[in-house]
Amino acid sequence: MGKNKGKQVEAITPRDVDFARWYTDVISKTEMVDYAPVKGFMVIRPYGYAIWENIKEAFDRRFKETGHKNMYFPLLIPESMLQTEAEHVEGFAPEVAWVTRGGGKELGERLAIRPTSETIICSMYSKWLNSYRQLPFKYNQWCNVVRWEKTTRPFLRTSEFLWQEGHTLHETEEEARAETMQMLNIYREVTEDFMAIPMVVGQKSEKEKFAGAEATYTIEALMHDGQALQSGTSHYLGQHFTKAFDISYLSRENKQENPYHTSWGVSTRLIGGLIMVHGDDNGLVLPPKIAPIQVVIIPVAAHKPRVAEAAGKLTDQLGKVFRAELDDSDNSPGWKFNQWEMKGVPIRLEIGPRDLERGECVLARRDTGEKTAVSLDDIEAHVADLLVAIQKNLYDKALKAREAKTSTAKDMQEFAERLKENPGFIKANWCGDPACEDKIHDETGATLRCIPFDGEQEVIGDGTCVCCGKHADKMAYFARAY
Amino acid sequence: MGKNKGKQVEAITPRDVDFARWYTDVISKTEMVDYAPVKGFMVIRPYGYAIWENIKEAFDRRFKETGHKNMYFPLLIPESMLQTEAEHVEGFAPEVAWVTRGGGKELGERLAIRPTSETIICSMYSKWLNSYRQLPFKYNQWCNVVRWEKTTRPFLRTSEFLWQEGHTLHETEEEARAETMQMLNIYREVTEDFMAIPMVVGQKSEKEKFAGAEATYTIEALMHDGQALQSGTSHYLGQHFTKAFDISYLSRENKQENPYHTSWGVSTRLIGGLIMVHGDDNGLVLPPKIAPIQVVIIPVAAHKPRVAEAAGKLTDQLGKVFRAELDDSDNSPGWKFNQWEMKGVPIRLEIGPRDLERGECVLARRDTGEKTAVSLDDIEAHVADLLVAIQKNLYDKALKAREAKTSTAKDMQEFAERLKENPGFIKANWCGDPACEDKIHDETGATLRCIPFDGEQEVIGDGTCVCCGKHADKMAYFARAY
Repeated sequence: MGKNKGKQVEAITPRDVDFARWYTDVISKTEMVDYAPVKGFMVIRPYGYAIWENIKEAFDRRFKETGHKNMYFPLLIPESMLQTEAEHVEGFAPEVAWVTRGGGKELGERLAIRPTSETIICSMYSKWLNSYRQLPFKYNQWCNVVRWEKTTRPFLRTSEFLWQEGHTLHETEEEARAETMQMLNIYREVTEDFMAIPMVVGQKSEKEKFAGAEATYTIEALMHDGQALQSGTSHYLGQHFTKAFDISYLSRENKQENPYHTSWGVSTRLIGGLIMVHGDDNGLVLPPKIAPIQVVIIPVAAHKPRVAEAAGKLTDQLGKVFRAELDDSDNSPGWKFNQWEMKGVPIRLEIGPRDLERGECVLARRDTGEKTAVSLDDIEAHVADLLVAIQKNLYDKALKAREAKTSTAKDMQEFAERLKENPGFIKANWCGDPACEDKIHDETGATLRCIPFDGEQEVIGDGTCVCCGKHADKMAYFARAY
Repeated sequence: MGKNKGKQVEAITPRDVDFARWYTDVISKTEMVDYAPVKGFMVIRPYGYAIWENIKEAFDRRFKETGHKNMYFPLLIPESMLQTEAEHVEGFAPEVAWVTRGGGKELGERLAIRPTSETIICSMYSKWLNSYRQLPFKYNQWCNVVRWEKTTRPFLRTSEFLWQEGHTLHETEEEARAETMQMLNIYREVTEDFMAIPMVVGQKSEKEKFAGAEATYTIEALMHDGQALQSGTSHYLGQHFTKAFDISYLSRENKQENPYHTSWGVSTRLIGGLIMVHGDDNGLVLPPKIAPIQVVIIPVAAHKPRVAEAAGKLTDQLGKVFRAELDDSDNSPGWKFNQWEMKGVPIRLEIGPRDLERGECVLARRDTGEKTAVSLDDIEAHVADLLVAIQKNLYDKALKAREAKTSTAKDMQEFAERLKENPGFIKANWCGDPACEDKIHDETGATLRCIPFDGEQEVIGDGTCVCCGKHADKMAYFARAY
């Protein structure tokens, strides 16, 4: 891509020099996010929040299409309620923020700010459910949650984040398991189709599963630096919570039964993944389906006759079909090019006096840097086609990058070497023993990300555990992770 | 309206027997809301939340059309920050919920759960704003807030509620005042056009204004029981906060200046207003533009040939244009009629074997009870027209009811009599003295709801204060209020 002249935007640290600093530079220079006064909390600025709105809308549409309805549960959960399911409280208690005073008084019982809402939702479901005729319950909420974290990074791990949590009840185990899988598939579809992030999908180990779940399923993405990012989880909760909270109903057979239960969530963490998968040394690169601005229109030599007017008209025309924005500020075109490139806008449309003479404009792709002159007569079709091409290219590129960073290992020496040479996913057989999982983590820093489903299983070599050498009929993905 | 046969839905207390119980019956029997485990908090159930989603979307679209962008600020505010603006902290401190422990440790400084976000937003604006070129800042957030309340009622006054809070900065006082008025007008438009609730609009007195504001403007609705509901407020904040938080920028004249500031909010309280303005003794009555279900399709004698199929087809057809739902449960038609009437669905479409023979179906209006047989050939047009008519009728009816409950008073005796005979708005002259305002409140329980703008002013009688008899050139609306 021909480098633009003009005032330089303050430089972003190159990815391969210091990935953590690159990330920090990108999120702050693009004004996506800022650090809040309370350590570990973040302010999501308009450009970051617009991305979240688009992500949210894509998920919400799919949830509603599959028969889910939204609702809203209270922020505060009494301590006694949080303690109702033993595993659950043990998992979350260390991260809880406690409200101890309200309305000028010490409270009789302290209240947890929800770290997740299984307990309070179950307490209400218990009240609402009477008959099998009411089932399934398929509800979701979009809200904020608080988990007190020691080490935080905006979007990736913050003491408060925004998310959705679906909570469903079903008559049978089969139905609940099918729901768990359906939501996992929706997570995969939306992250892959809208966010252009290829996912590795599978089950979490006992050690990594949700506190109180029978089984946790996950979508895992690989970042540019070779670290994995858990991007969404769907839990089959069996009857743990429904028994603990005494949720029961009169069944078709006229008996009191406890329903089967699922929960599933994705969060603002996904924005971190989006940045770290697609971004480059010039800043953000946003997939068209999620980008707050899909095409930015920049007049060149705007003082020349007809240019400003033509740019305005084009913006109006394109704005009817795409998320289009005109930059008619008095910055130089070169400065604008850099600025919008950094902000990851998929297409930059340049229009100047010479373009106008020819009845053309120039479309510049953010993902490849390619510039093409196209006729103004069919500009909408050109932009539409290019957006589709960019969306596809970003996914393909990310998949290729992930594949290049995925190795296999037969034993611990190979595991350590591969991970060092080429940080990323390590596919290795695992016998299922938590001791092996712990040893792998202790020796390499890698955690078990997921065990792929049967259709995507590929046992390595002779089918022995990468750690203990015993028989292992499952391959798992390991990686260092955010 | 011909009363439907069939199993009776459990009765709702009539409005004029006990309005508070009527309200509680309606919100619980329609499954809009439930009481949370923590006193004063509410659970917004799917039917209530779907109404909130529609309200939210109507406002959000208008905010975006007028150039506002959404963002998200943290839930927790350090105590020292809340204290930065003196009036503000005094106003909110008694209602604050305090977090004192997090991550297993006592916190160094206690943190307020936001009762509103002026302080934390100003602290960030101070960091972000440098030059007049960046102005105006026109940002909004949708979030939850907590204000510890002693007496609570779902939607109307709860210790946690959902709302939006817009926060803008401007170069000039004129611009900020214009923004304050623009947002007030948007509040009026959306509540009147979408929610069909007529509003009285004006300025709050010094006593009733927002803690830290120079001026607060309000939209006030009148409920069926004659009590007013403050339904949205827009504040001109001047430079109070921008000075306290040291927000400044380099002006066009190359000087450091403090910008002018506004904030404005509406909340889930609006749902309470919707219920209490339109509801009747049979339950909810929802304006079509806000109703989660605009038309419910009920097959009659569904076991007869073609009925179930026709009802399904009609639902698909109407579902492409309207929010339509089929009730093909095995409850009796009569039970369904009552159920959906209670839920306030604007149109019930009945279709049975005889209708089918005639190529017709029956449309029943929730607002008037009228039933009309219409041809299936142009069913979409019939439904569309009827929804428009219902929307308009609900507004007209509410306006008439408000007018019937609005009196004028020239002196305190008249004030007390009118309010007793015909509870509602009392229009009375007020000299501007807070002592008179207090006296009116002490003697009648009515508060000053707002002082209408000049265009809507109408000084009563000889222009003397209803309380002290001194000269008064302004009329104000008084009422008992939620």
